Amino acid sequence: MGKRYDYQAIKQWVKRIYDAYGFSENDSAIIARSITATDLYGIESHGVQRLAMYDRKINAGDIKVDAVPEVICETPVSAVLDGHKGMGQLVAGKAMRLAIEKAEQSGVGIVSVRHSNHYGMAGYYAKMASDKGMVGISATNSNPFLIPTYATQPFLGSNPLAFSMPAQPHSFLFDAATTVVSLGKIEVYAKRGKTVPGAWAVDESNEISKDAKKLRKNLSAAPKIGGMLPVGGKGEKNGGYKGFGNALIVEILTSILSQGHLSADLGSGTVKGISHFFTAIDLHLFGDPGEISESLSVMLERIRNLPAETGEKIYIHGDKEAAAFEDRLKNGILIDSETVKEMAEISEQLHIPYQMYL
Amino acid sequence: MGKRYDYQAIKQWVKRIYDAYGFSENDSAIIARSITATDLYGIESHGVQRLAMYDRKINAGDIKVDAVPEVICETPVSAVLDGHKGMGQLVAGKAMRLAIEKAEQSGVGIVSVRHSNHYGMAGYYAKMASDKGMVGISATNSNPFLIPTYATQPFLGSNPLAFSMPAQPHSFLFDAATTVVSLGKIEVYAKRGKTVPGAWAVDESNEISKDAKKLRKNLSAAPKIGGMLPVGGKGEKNGGYKGFGNALIVEILTSILSQGHLSADLGSGTVKGISHFFTAIDLHLFGDPGEISESLSVMLERIRNLPAETGEKIYIHGDKEAAAFEDRLKNGILIDSETVKEMAEISEQLHIPYQMYL
Repeated sequence: MGKRYDYQAIKQWVKRIYDAYGFSENDSAIIARSITATDLYGIESHGVQRLAMYDRKINAGDIKVDAVPEVICETPVSAVLDGHKGMGQLVAGKAMRLAIEKAEQSGVGIVSVRHSNHYGMAGYYAKMASDKGMVGISATNSNPFLIPTYATQPFLGSNPLAFSMPAQPHSFLFDAATTVVSLGKIEVYAKRGKTVPGAWAVDESNEISKDAKKLRKNLSAAPKIGGMLPVGGKGEKNGGYKGFGNALIVEILTSILSQGHLSADLGSGTVKGISHFFTAIDLHLFGDPGEISESLSVMLERIRNLPAETGEKIYIHGDKEAAAFEDRLKNGILIDSETVKEMAEISEQLHIPYQMYL
Repeated sequence: MGKRYDYQAIKQWVKRIYDAYGFSENDSAIIARSITATDLYGIESHGVQRLAMYDRKINAGDIKVDAVPEVICETPVSAVLDGHKGMGQLVAGKAMRLAIEKAEQSGVGIVSVRHSNHYGMAGYYAKMASDKGMVGISATNSNPFLIPTYATQPFLGSNPLAFSMPAQPHSFLFDAATTVVSLGKIEVYAKRGKTVPGAWAVDESNEISKDAKKLRKNLSAAPKIGGMLPVGGKGEKNGGYKGFGNALIVEILTSILSQGHLSADLGSGTVKGISHFFTAIDLHLFGDPGEISESLSVMLERIRNLPAETGEKIYIHGDKEAAAFEDRLKNGILIDSETVKEMAEISEQLHIPYQMYL
């Protein structure tokens, strides 16, 4: 499936690649940290696996190496940022740092962003706030994947929302697409030649399909064929209308508030640039941050210790990521051979020696 | 099933009932407006149908007629409110008005509330903000209903979250429990002697049951038997972990931030008082409110006009409520005979003449 590679070495390799694209030393370091941290959390679909996609976008000029994100309007509690098609990790990092600064000054910081690019793992930015003792929220729109309830074509993005808050032994970290699964999960099943286990997506006839290879092909077409179902599934019977609504809320917070492009208009044609949303909230607004965080830790531990189904363990959002982080830091991050090959090819094109990182 | 009654007359009747409990004229009017507006929106499960439950709680002293909600701590962008076990509609109304005032002054207002009571329809408070041209968010915890993924007993509440924003021809209004359905929906199926159509709840053996009467009985027991599934369903196959996460986020925003009681500790025993969360965000933070709202209206209209499944119509959250509002205002609100009987009994106990309202 894949091999383990030393995290520090891979981070250095990624930084070298971004140095070579022409990003500043500082920006390359930020990008490399964000991308490889995602692999540390075990979210391999959004880490170095994405380098090939970013490479295509940089070469096509969809990601601008020299973009300088611009604050369009600003108050003590908010800002709107135009990413000017910069690298998503840079734009998002700047936006969340701005939200955190505003929260430090005013108690809360809300930053809506337009004209950015794929920013990796939504939770990475939410966790930037919880690492500072705050509540952090991060969301993004994307290419159109999600089919609204009773429609027959996609309109909304996979539109993930992440929420993080400090707790012991590690932060609460929720990070989830508003579709049943992210496209990456279908891709994993397709690569392994397996059928998908649930009702995740529909085919060209708007019928639920479990054929991972067909779904991957359809969902990579432009315009897409079929689409992905919202959490809650097809129709209204099991609450699909709620997943659709959550995706709409993310679309409002991202592309509507920032006056950027709708998910519906991305992915085919010439419209480019996705939108994000970030919020940081200082826990001092509600009392003693230590006490509030402690009561969260106690609640989460009570949930972990509830009676469980036979053979199952109850996980809190963030538990698996924290365990993966510890494991990967010690034993290396997991990269499949195809991704390593892609990284080697990118490095050769950029005339970067890379053998020492392997 | 039920009969139509003039909205103004029923609102007047409800106000008389609350006058008789000893609430001030002003407070009774606020309570009556909130409860009957819910019936106008067609959410009959949370309107006058709840008067009997409130009556029991008032008589038991769980709802304090003379409670004065108290601001525990406050900043220009936030407050924590202790409801001192007051009527949920009064506490929540005060909290959302405070959030709106802060948003008018500072751009955003966040108010977390503890020691309150059932506040009716979550969306009513979110819409208070969108009626002022703002984004409104409202959430509440509740008695424990939701079973965390892989657990075998409920811990979290049905934990609804509502989100509203101004649009034409009417506000976007999302209002949904983080369980697949609210208990009220199971009660409706039980009353009609029907089986439930989806995988909504599990029985005493942690197996999905479609027996509405059994589910209603189990879920009304203290402590509850079985429990309700999160949006996304049982296990992880179709994203149940995401619905569980959304319920956890609501629990954090309500009982954790306000330092109130957890859903898990309510519903049986002596712990009383639920927690709410409200946010109002001024659209001026992001640019011209008219333009932003217009772009939302345009997007929602595009979704309504997507190709639809045969025989189906695509609804945006708030469409059904707006249509019901218009219908009920003109043709009367819909009240079942059992509820009218309960209202008559309450009125007799309070020595209120009520025949003129029927």
